[in-house]
Amino acid sequence: MTVANAGEFGLIARVTARLRPGRACLLGPGDDAAVVAAPDGRVAASTDVLVEGRHFRRDWSSARDVGHRAAAANLADIAAMGAVPTALLVALCAPPDLDVRWAEELADGLAAEASLVDAGVVGGDMSASPTLTIAVTALGDLGGRSPVVRSGARPGDVVALNGRLGYAAAGYTVLTRGFRTPKLLVEAFRRPEVPYSAGPEAARWGATAMIDVSDGLLADLGHIATASDVGIDLKREAFIVPDTMRNAAAALGVDPYHWILAGGDDHALAATFPADAALPAGWTVVGTVGDGAGGVTVNGRAYRGGATGWDHFR
Amino acid sequence: MTVANAGEFGLIARVTARLRPGRACLLGPGDDAAVVAAPDGRVAASTDVLVEGRHFRRDWSSARDVGHRAAAANLADIAAMGAVPTALLVALCAPPDLDVRWAEELADGLAAEASLVDAGVVGGDMSASPTLTIAVTALGDLGGRSPVVRSGARPGDVVALNGRLGYAAAGYTVLTRGFRTPKLLVEAFRRPEVPYSAGPEAARWGATAMIDVSDGLLADLGHIATASDVGIDLKREAFIVPDTMRNAAAALGVDPYHWILAGGDDHALAATFPADAALPAGWTVVGTVGDGAGGVTVNGRAYRGGATGWDHFR
Repeated sequence: MTVANAGEFGLIARVTARLRPGRACLLGPGDDAAVVAAPDGRVAASTDVLVEGRHFRRDWSSARDVGHRAAAANLADIAAMGAVPTALLVALCAPPDLDVRWAEELADGLAAEASLVDAGVVGGDMSASPTLTIAVTALGDLGGRSPVVRSGARPGDVVALNGRLGYAAAGYTVLTRGFRTPKLLVEAFRRPEVPYSAGPEAARWGATAMIDVSDGLLADLGHIATASDVGIDLKREAFIVPDTMRNAAAALGVDPYHWILAGGDDHALAATFPADAALPAGWTVVGTVGDGAGGVTVNGRAYRGGATGWDHFR
Repeated sequence: MTVANAGEFGLIARVTARLRPGRACLLGPGDDAAVVAAPDGRVAASTDVLVEGRHFRRDWSSARDVGHRAAAANLADIAAMGAVPTALLVALCAPPDLDVRWAEELADGLAAEASLVDAGVVGGDMSASPTLTIAVTALGDLGGRSPVVRSGARPGDVVALNGRLGYAAAGYTVLTRGFRTPKLLVEAFRRPEVPYSAGPEAARWGATAMIDVSDGLLADLGHIATASDVGIDLKREAFIVPDTMRNAAAALGVDPYHWILAGGDDHALAATFPADAALPAGWTVVGTVGDGAGGVTVNGRAYRGGATGWDHFR
């Protein structure tokens, strides 16, 4: 059955039936707006959009994968503020001939990813469109903490990472070359593994700045360096290339450090901490903050590995 | 200059410069997420998407018009819960050859409409897409009130309206027939005039159910009737056809009551109140709630004017 056959309200009913509203949901789908608990008295909110052909391909990712990734991209933004995600809202624009099952499985993926943080899909909208598009808004609660912004890094801080880097970019390269393995890398592209709880934990441990790595580590640390008016120097030796990635890189003739330093979409968390701070578990120091004006270097030099970030219009 | 020339970050900078974050914004655009005040400890949240060719046409509406309408559709949803809008987040999907000025003027329209309720655009996302698409999420504060849901109407209640009905549908018909006047109707299609403050006021005065009229009055009251498990009967005589609409209807060979009863997109507010309640200013009683199972009638009979609501997949 196509979404046009199901009709707008039929499709909404089918999709809504598969969603769980989550712990913070006070009023779920079906009214003019949802109502979500915001016990902190503030709400963190972020929107990300996924467009078919730009952010995903239906022959590379299942609907469930796309749901996982759409939710993860937004939930990671909330975690990167030091907040705990509470709810998602989802706008789905679908070609009229889209199979209803695709929309249902998208909802399953969104719900499954959100359930990792005990959040849920509380509302949304649907429309026909020639271009399959998923716009997700995530909400989160700061639990009394100050948001960890991009502008807080100070000279002398250390730069630390939590989560995988380069896996999604490697999986993307594998898929573009027509392969379907190694599964570890391809699956990483399909479904990021985001260390959600590390965000609020880093905030509690005194992180001075934080960002989720979505555009590529150098590009995203560049956002911190610019906002904080500092320089950041990474130590290349701090990045361990896993065997699977090293082998895939050799087979494909790629420098694996390019995946690690410039590849996006793993949604690892990168943060700066005072040099004398103890780091919570799961964080690895990969560099230092110094004087400078927005520059990011590797072992003291500009990185010369080609493009270092995504531009979604190019 | 096209949005592709400007690049993702260039476009974000240009658009962001035109936005005002609004009263409730604690942290605006430029970080992983925005932070918005939610003094009530709960946040009302709603998402609506506008797709070119489905919800707007660039030859019928200016970018600024589209911005007004995209914001209004979402802000009206928040008002219809009895909440005060606090912030918007906007995802823009644009063809790479879109003129940057179109995106800038869209932002101007969004900002101008949001400023009517002292709210602002606090965040968003941008991507290239073959289909021009605008997904907006609105947040709002309930100010300690219970949300006014669709399921609260009770037999014996009166049905009342605040705002214009049929104007946008009339303007749409005018445009589809190739005309550009009467200006009153065409402008109503381009930019709805939403009685935002009437939503929280109705909540304070004891409204039992409320909805914003976006799909058409009969369809939207049908949502209240179904959710509340009641019947609703409208009095045709309660709807005054303004002269401009009557004349346009006569010229186009249309029954103006069809615009009023079945036309969407004016975002008037429809609410039910206890029969003995005094109504706040600006509300007009147009019907009564009775027993029944989700039916909406006009002078006791089913309305026979054709389709009574929009289905965005058909």
